Amino acid sequence: MTARTEFEPVYKDIFPFWSRLSEADRDYLCENSYAVTYPRGRNIHDGNDCSGVILVQNGSLRLYMMSDEGREITLYRLHRGDICMLSASCVLESITFDVFVDAEEDSDCYVIGGPAFAALSERVPDIRIFALETAVGRFSDVMWVMQQILFMSMDKRLAIFLLDESARTGVDTITLTHGQIARYIGSAREVVSRMLKYFAGEGIVEVSRGDIRILDRKRLRELTS
Amino acid sequence: MTARTEFEPVYKDIFPFWSRLSEADRDYLCENSYAVTYPRGRNIHDGNDCSGVILVQNGSLRLYMMSDEGREITLYRLHRGDICMLSASCVLESITFDVFVDAEEDSDCYVIGGPAFAALSERVPDIRIFALETAVGRFSDVMWVMQQILFMSMDKRLAIFLLDESARTGVDTITLTHGQIARYIGSAREVVSRMLKYFAGEGIVEVSRGDIRILDRKRLRELTS
Repeated sequence: MTARTEFEPVYKDIFPFWSRLSEADRDYLCENSYAVTYPRGRNIHDGNDCSGVILVQNGSLRLYMMSDEGREITLYRLHRGDICMLSASCVLESITFDVFVDAEEDSDCYVIGGPAFAALSERVPDIRIFALETAVGRFSDVMWVMQQILFMSMDKRLAIFLLDESARTGVDTITLTHGQIARYIGSAREVVSRMLKYFAGEGIVEVSRGDIRILDRKRLRELTS
Repeated sequence: MTARTEFEPVYKDIFPFWSRLSEADRDYLCENSYAVTYPRGRNIHDGNDCSGVILVQNGSLRLYMMSDEGREITLYRLHRGDICMLSASCVLESITFDVFVDAEEDSDCYVIGGPAFAALSERVPDIRIFALETAVGRFSDVMWVMQQILFMSMDKRLAIFLLDESARTGVDTITLTHGQIARYIGSAREVVSRMLKYFAGEGIVEVSRGDIRILDRKRLRELTS
């Protein structure tokens, strides 16, 4: 199988500019791509280097910031069909902050080498626009997180997280530890445990070992407003 | 004076794409521009509407987020030669969060109507790239503010230090270098300098050569809680 036959079927659906690329540029992008499966928990991108453009085929990646003391704040997650552009800082020179990317599950990804993508995006305005728009779109996600953390109260934050997570997985039961939830919403484990206990006391959720089950979706939703 | 003769001298310096625009497009941008002086304290942009692209000629604009309760967080400031793109949400459809823009001083600005700029940026990739790059560049500023406030409580640590030091010496002026302060609060000189600049912008302190003078003790105290 050539690189072109391997990657083109995916690229032509994911990249709006694909049909306008020359044959040579399509070959170039495919030849500078590779398929990789990141095992659950693996750190994929670490700070401000140019790991490349990552396309998620299956699984889930988590982007986060980290303090000097190792405290993490999740910015957003990427799922099937999503593209990670912040891991290619050589493509977007104006991005000067460090983000980290971990695989949250075993994740099948395609990676396009950063320098190759950057070289092409210098030449082809369509690609540059796509890369920038992808980044700007995430800006809004990050601003949302910032607003949650800086402005909102904890009960609201936790309620939003539980509803989002339940919507994402399609089930009422959230299988995450309190520590994991705390990291996602930028809080401490103790705070999450205490708030979950409060929610449980109110009959909004049921907390058992390793599971949180949503009992009263209506009241949870009321908390988010 | 025609619109073209009024605005072109500024636009040709500020817009890297100007020389590549057609005559008709230059006319179009100029004819959809107006000059305005915002008085100090005036709110210029309020949330997610499309106020247009604002070019600062003189003065200072402040961009901030606001919570439901009216709490504000300054994201960054714009000065002479800077361009405000987040006030033109119709240009960047992927920006879905609300920012507010106030004039901090009497500010002379040129404004290009949002719909006109958006229409042109749809047609001219150079303009679209410029608009997106301007927005992505500010992404990094915002992430810095976020990191300092969320992780380091750097604002808090610095505020506590300045108040303690002032209490200890009995005067409003702290005569220490930024490097010395950084060592006292366990940070880096660059971080202290940047945070002091942030405080100065907020009118909390005045920073001069070798001195930091506390101007607004009440707000400094609020930061410590």
